[in-house]
Amino acid sequence: MSSESEQDDTRREIMGATYRALCKHGYANLTMQDIADEFDKSKSLLHYHYDTKDDLMLAFLDHVIGWIGDRLEESETEEPLDRLREYLDRFVIKPGEEEESFSLALLELRLQAVHHPGFREKLQAHYESNVETAARILDDGIEEEVFKPVDTHAVAEMLYTSMTGASAYQVTLGASQATTSMRDALLRFVVTDLLVEPADGRIETEVS
Amino acid sequence: MSSESEQDDTRREIMGATYRALCKHGYANLTMQDIADEFDKSKSLLHYHYDTKDDLMLAFLDHVIGWIGDRLEESETEEPLDRLREYLDRFVIKPGEEEESFSLALLELRLQAVHHPGFREKLQAHYESNVETAARILDDGIEEEVFKPVDTHAVAEMLYTSMTGASAYQVTLGASQATTSMRDALLRFVVTDLLVEPADGRIETEVS
Repeated sequence: MSSESEQDDTRREIMGATYRALCKHGYANLTMQDIADEFDKSKSLLHYHYDTKDDLMLAFLDHVIGWIGDRLEESETEEPLDRLREYLDRFVIKPGEEEESFSLALLELRLQAVHHPGFREKLQAHYESNVETAARILDDGIEEEVFKPVDTHAVAEMLYTSMTGASAYQVTLGASQATTSMRDALLRFVVTDLLVEPADGRIETEVS
Repeated sequence: MSSESEQDDTRREIMGATYRALCKHGYANLTMQDIADEFDKSKSLLHYHYDTKDDLMLAFLDHVIGWIGDRLEESETEEPLDRLREYLDRFVIKPGEEEESFSLALLELRLQAVHHPGFREKLQAHYESNVETAARILDDGIEEEVFKPVDTHAVAEMLYTSMTGASAYQVTLGASQATTSMRDALLRFVVTDLLVEPADGRIETEVS
């Protein structure tokens, strides 16, 4: 019997293998063998931890949702405008990178969610939690009188949903600048409107 | 041999059957038999017109892209602000309707486009053409001095992409108000900023 921490390590390695397999093969045709091929240890060890592709994908969703959620909350600054900018920047996908493959796999999983209550529940919670992260930045900005009072949940949902739309456009139809353009448009139109003091240049985007 | 106009009628009926079959079954598991089941005439007549599911789906994409494109351009008014509002309204999906099933099927087709050059080419042209429809409304508005001068293509892409993101959120994760909220947020933040004269109440949304 391996120790608990060894088992945790194994599970973490399996999550890494699943991530790599998803980037390579997408979700629709993914097999346990594809994941085993990315895993340094034995296929039987993979099956020892997860009986089916479904079990593994549910665990993977928990893992990746936690990881994305944490990443969205990370910031080295307390300044609400900078934090909001960082939040939007995190959805900008550089063309041709692994990130594009992974965004595509996540979109596939969202489509699966329509007929899969387990996926659906996790992805709904993930969506709502990412919206809430933006709403908290807006709330802090309103409290600090950087942003005007608005319905922070509604604005946060708009920001997040627009970035996911741009991401889907980029990864399905090859619009390589879609996420960059959307980030810039949101800064220009939405974030500028939120500011109590007129933009002082910090709001300018790289491409404007 | 049937006449050309009879053949046109048959093809139109096949497109209707394909639409109904897609709404019922989605794309992933759709079979020629599902489409034949929605078609009043014989299955052999279906196969006479389209050899494979792929041939039929390519013809269907042409048909539906033309139909959606025409619908987006339709307007009874010449007034740019009203036309822009109508444009955004057309993406608002009432919950639980056939429209939700169909939007979901279109999203599935977009995911197929990643690995299917034929689908990809048509869906890219469709995307660009829908963006151009909004850009033309903005161009007219600038010419008539209703809207401020902006990069109309960039703004149009933002409006369209945001609405498609909201549509994907609504149909995959059951966020029944997502398209309504996005329409309202775009009117409030983006369209308001475009106006030469401050909003006079016409910009108010149903839920604001």
